Amino acid sequence: MMNPPYRSINPLVFVLIHGSWADTSFWDGISAELRQMRHNVHAVPYAGHDSDPNRQATHAMIVKSVVDYIVQRGLTDIVLVGHSFGGTVIQKTAEQIPERIKRLVFLNAFVLPDGQSLADQLPPAAVDTFTQLRKASTDDTISLPYALFRESFANLGSEEQAKWLFDRTPAEPAGPLFEKLGLKRFYSLQIPRSYVYLTEDNVFPQTDEYSFHPRMSARLGLYRLIKGTGDHMVTPRYEPGYVARLLYMGARD
Amino acid sequence: MMNPPYRSINPLVFVLIHGSWADTSFWDGISAELRQMRHNVHAVPYAGHDSDPNRQATHAMIVKSVVDYIVQRGLTDIVLVGHSFGGTVIQKTAEQIPERIKRLVFLNAFVLPDGQSLADQLPPAAVDTFTQLRKASTDDTISLPYALFRESFANLGSEEQAKWLFDRTPAEPAGPLFEKLGLKRFYSLQIPRSYVYLTEDNVFPQTDEYSFHPRMSARLGLYRLIKGTGDHMVTPRYEPGYVARLLYMGARD
Amino acid sequence: MMNPPYRSINPLVFVLIHGSWADTSFWDGISAELRQMRHNVHAVPYAGHDSDPNRQATHAMIVKSVVDYIVQRGLTDIVLVGHSFGGTVIQKTAEQIPERIKRLVFLNAFVLPDGQSLADQLPPAAVDTFTQLRKASTDDTISLPYALFRESFANLGSEEQAKWLFDRTPAEPAGPLFEKLGLKRFYSLQIPRSYVYLTEDNVFPQTDEYSFHPRMSARLGLYRLIKGTGDHMVTPRYEPGYVARLLYMGARD
Repeated sequence: MMNPPYRSINPLVFVLIHGSWADTSFWDGISAELRQMRHNVHAVPYAGHDSDPNRQATHAMIVKSVVDYIVQRGLTDIVLVGHSFGGTVIQKTAEQIPERIKRLVFLNAFVLPDGQSLADQLPPAAVDTFTQLRKASTDDTISLPYALFRESFANLGSEEQAKWLFDRTPAEPAGPLFEKLGLKRFYSLQIPRSYVYLTEDNVFPQTDEYSFHPRMSARLGLYRLIKGTGDHMVTPRYEPGYVARLLYMGARD
Repeated sequence: MMNPPYRSINPLVFVLIHGSWADTSFWDGISAELRQMRHNVHAVPYAGHDSDPNRQATHAMIVKSVVDYIVQRGLTDIVLVGHSFGGTVIQKTAEQIPERIKRLVFLNAFVLPDGQSLADQLPPAAVDTFTQLRKASTDDTISLPYALFRESFANLGSEEQAKWLFDRTPAEPAGPLFEKLGLKRFYSLQIPRSYVYLTEDNVFPQTDEYSFHPRMSARLGLYRLIKGTGDHMVTPRYEPGYVARLLYMGARD
Repeated sequence: MMNPPYRSINPLVFVLIHGSWADTSFWDGISAELRQMRHNVHAVPYAGHDSDPNRQATHAMIVKSVVDYIVQRGLTDIVLVGHSFGGTVIQKTAEQIPERIKRLVFLNAFVLPDGQSLADQLPPAAVDTFTQLRKASTDDTISLPYALFRESFANLGSEEQAKWLFDRTPAEPAGPLFEKLGLKRFYSLQIPRSYVYLTEDNVFPQTDEYSFHPRMSARLGLYRLIKGTGDHMVTPRYEPGYVARLLYMGARD
């Protein structure tokens, strides 16, 4: 099942939205693989991340970055992919420019219900941890402790891989993680959607209540499910060809 | 774990019962693979499906087709396999001719509790969809919309595979899906049973409450669990050797 | 993700604790594989098992066997691995000699909450079965019926593999399975911990409520998750290289 053609005869336009504690370099390997399949690929930088030093960026500012990027380049018929926190960004982006989107693809991504925040999806102990880390910062960001990053975000990697990634992990502006988002319009949209789930992701405890799949995915209603082996951060970076093929399986018609 | 011998030294008698929106051709590839392993294979046509045009076939008529097929051919010591809706058929068949059955094998199949219908197992939104599709038909059948088939039944396939299968998907007589079945005798039987679960099956949301595994499987009490990678319709048709090996792992002593 | 170097440049000290209905031979293949990777490996015999004929061994006596083994050999910086019931043993061992333990690794193992027994984790029907088997014995042990062993412990194996293992399955002293353990200290420890989960393990029904993962694993708080394909008894014995690599992924820094 895992061997779709590398050179697709139906090239797609991929727009890739990274998550928290990451920047567009998260997509470097995956973008290269998708381009080798002849797809058109955009990894979008956004407010409060990448080259923007504003630590007070709001969720709306992040979404504006993405919408502006797409509109200014006149991109249409796009496959809009969100990883982790990026799921909340593609939900709001879809509300603003649904006519440009061919399909939404959630890669181990949050799918928020109307009126809730990302933090509302986490187990209470995780919310406590993030709240304390936020308070400990001087610029309203959250810096992940190495142990948390290694066990929860990079569990399948070697120590070298985990440390290499950790050394390149930026502090995350805390605000957008705690913002409650109105998503009524999102839940009225008919855009096709897929959930690509790497099954060793250890950000959530993987219970019915706290999990990317089935908890987040089930909110999508009718959606396409693709699964693969992998964790939250190491697999997308160190097995980009594998993840690119899974994304293509989620993206194709 | 996935390489049992192709040429079994203990040939088995497989009796294969397809599910809804399918006919005996569902088993074509799997039957060929099992025969290559030297097993004896029967893919059984049943009432309201295959060559029978009766859209008002009842669940009892379907079970009678299967029981008659087995008894008329004098088959004994059989491995009775049900896929999807076929799970409900092998449950009732087991009640009638338990002495002929060596083992029951459920392949992403329904296992109904006593007194319930297949529809009773579905999330409310799915029941609504099926009820509306039923009302929209002129002959009390349910025809799957392509989007639903593609995302939920054929999620791992290419567009070509999904369309090829969809073009050969018959309308399904609605009645048996909504019939409540008495299954007290089934739950008193001691026939060995296995559950073979293809883990990307997207017919259910894969929660504890709505899932083939663990929801349906757990009803079997002591049973053998086999898992593999695959979806509801594409994998059994396009990876028949793989699924045949999983079924053999479920079927062998 | 599954190919860490066979010859590790950072050899570890593995201390391996088997589960119920087993003895140190459970680890034979895995130990050999870990040693080939140049790790230091100890499979520890314990009270009521292995060469000790005492059927009245208590949980405390089992833990004493393990603690004594480690202390007498002066082992430090150890990776303490428990399989199945062995999970409860490494929990209590960690309470006594935390300073000697580098990391705890649970392999399809029980993680008990404070004040409960292993039996408290099982579905009511399983408790009934074990209670009846216990009463049926003359020496307060539980002997597994073959059908239960074959379907729940050896589901992925051939008949030959299942029978070979079953013939070497000792009766299990019943007492420790029903002992409630105080574990307040365990839950105050900061020792890193991992959960290695073989996903076809059929000892539990794999629901949220009754499962090794996520039910047991989630009790570990921050932990590293590793998954692989396998069942409770056949895979560790017949695919030892594969399981050894998974354990290494769980054990490394």
